[in-house]
Amino acid sequence: MSARESATDDDRLEARVGQRLRSAGLTIATAESSTGGLIAKRLTDIPGSSAYLIGGVIAYANRAKRRLLSLDEQMLVEQGAVSETVAREMAIGARTLFGVDLAISVTGIAGPDGATATKPVGLTFVALSTPRGVWVRRFVFEGDRLQNREQSADAAFQMVLDYLDGAL
Amino acid sequence: MSARESATDDDRLEARVGQRLRSAGLTIATAESSTGGLIAKRLTDIPGSSAYLIGGVIAYANRAKRRLLSLDEQMLVEQGAVSETVAREMAIGARTLFGVDLAISVTGIAGPDGATATKPVGLTFVALSTPRGVWVRRFVFEGDRLQNREQSADAAFQMVLDYLDGAL
Repeated sequence: MSARESATDDDRLEARVGQRLRSAGLTIATAESSTGGLIAKRLTDIPGSSAYLIGGVIAYANRAKRRLLSLDEQMLVEQGAVSETVAREMAIGARTLFGVDLAISVTGIAGPDGATATKPVGLTFVALSTPRGVWVRRFVFEGDRLQNREQSADAAFQMVLDYLDGAL
Repeated sequence: MSARESATDDDRLEARVGQRLRSAGLTIATAESSTGGLIAKRLTDIPGSSAYLIGGVIAYANRAKRRLLSLDEQMLVEQGAVSETVAREMAIGARTLFGVDLAISVTGIAGPDGATATKPVGLTFVALSTPRGVWVRRFVFEGDRLQNREQSADAAFQMVLDYLDGAL
């Protein structure tokens, strides 16, 4: 592959997301719990990502979720940090906080610890907040901690591509 | 290496930082520009990192630096986003925002683009805000984008270890 081709033929999901956002003139922000910065890291692996990535929040502790993303204490207690509602509110909170077109969020149990009676390791919610609405997808990944985190990031990028394809 | 040893003999910098923070009962937060989430990602690669990592901010665009970390617009314009002052204020801002003991920040020019007449690719400022004061270190890394980012994260972790060793 020539240097010229490699600049346009990068088929990593984060590169495809970047190309699509750039073409559409859209901005994006992230709100990450279980992925802990991996999604933003992968987006910023791509040179020129400052054209569309405004910023992100790693809301690892619940107090960070409350403080930065305006999540309600009672909701966190009742639903648990790993829940559809929290994923949804994290994405909405990030879209507002950064004033962007799109915001993606992830909350999950990456493992090896953290499972509960009703929530297994690998349970992950990925959300996308947009001008047209908010979507949440639920997964139970079956890898180890690092694999579950990479798959969570992949799922978030795929959700952005699906939205931009009109498939949501 | 047995499973038992591998849990304690992890000599990655992020694991050593985690062990030291856990032993000292200290919390940490991150404020990242050029590393774009890599520092938090590496910290959260380590199982159990929720014991000390409260959260982080990826302040990629200047408006994210202003909004989340309370950076002054005039300072950003006069000093430039890649400057000792901005690194310092990012660390101070993150320590306040998350209410943690320690906060680390990075701002730099990871490349391949972004160099100016006075600021080369690789120029990076790493700061640490603590109860005992704030320190900033300046580097000019000579790798590619990914290498410069990894070296920036290494430098941030080393700064925390130096602080905990009383060497700052």
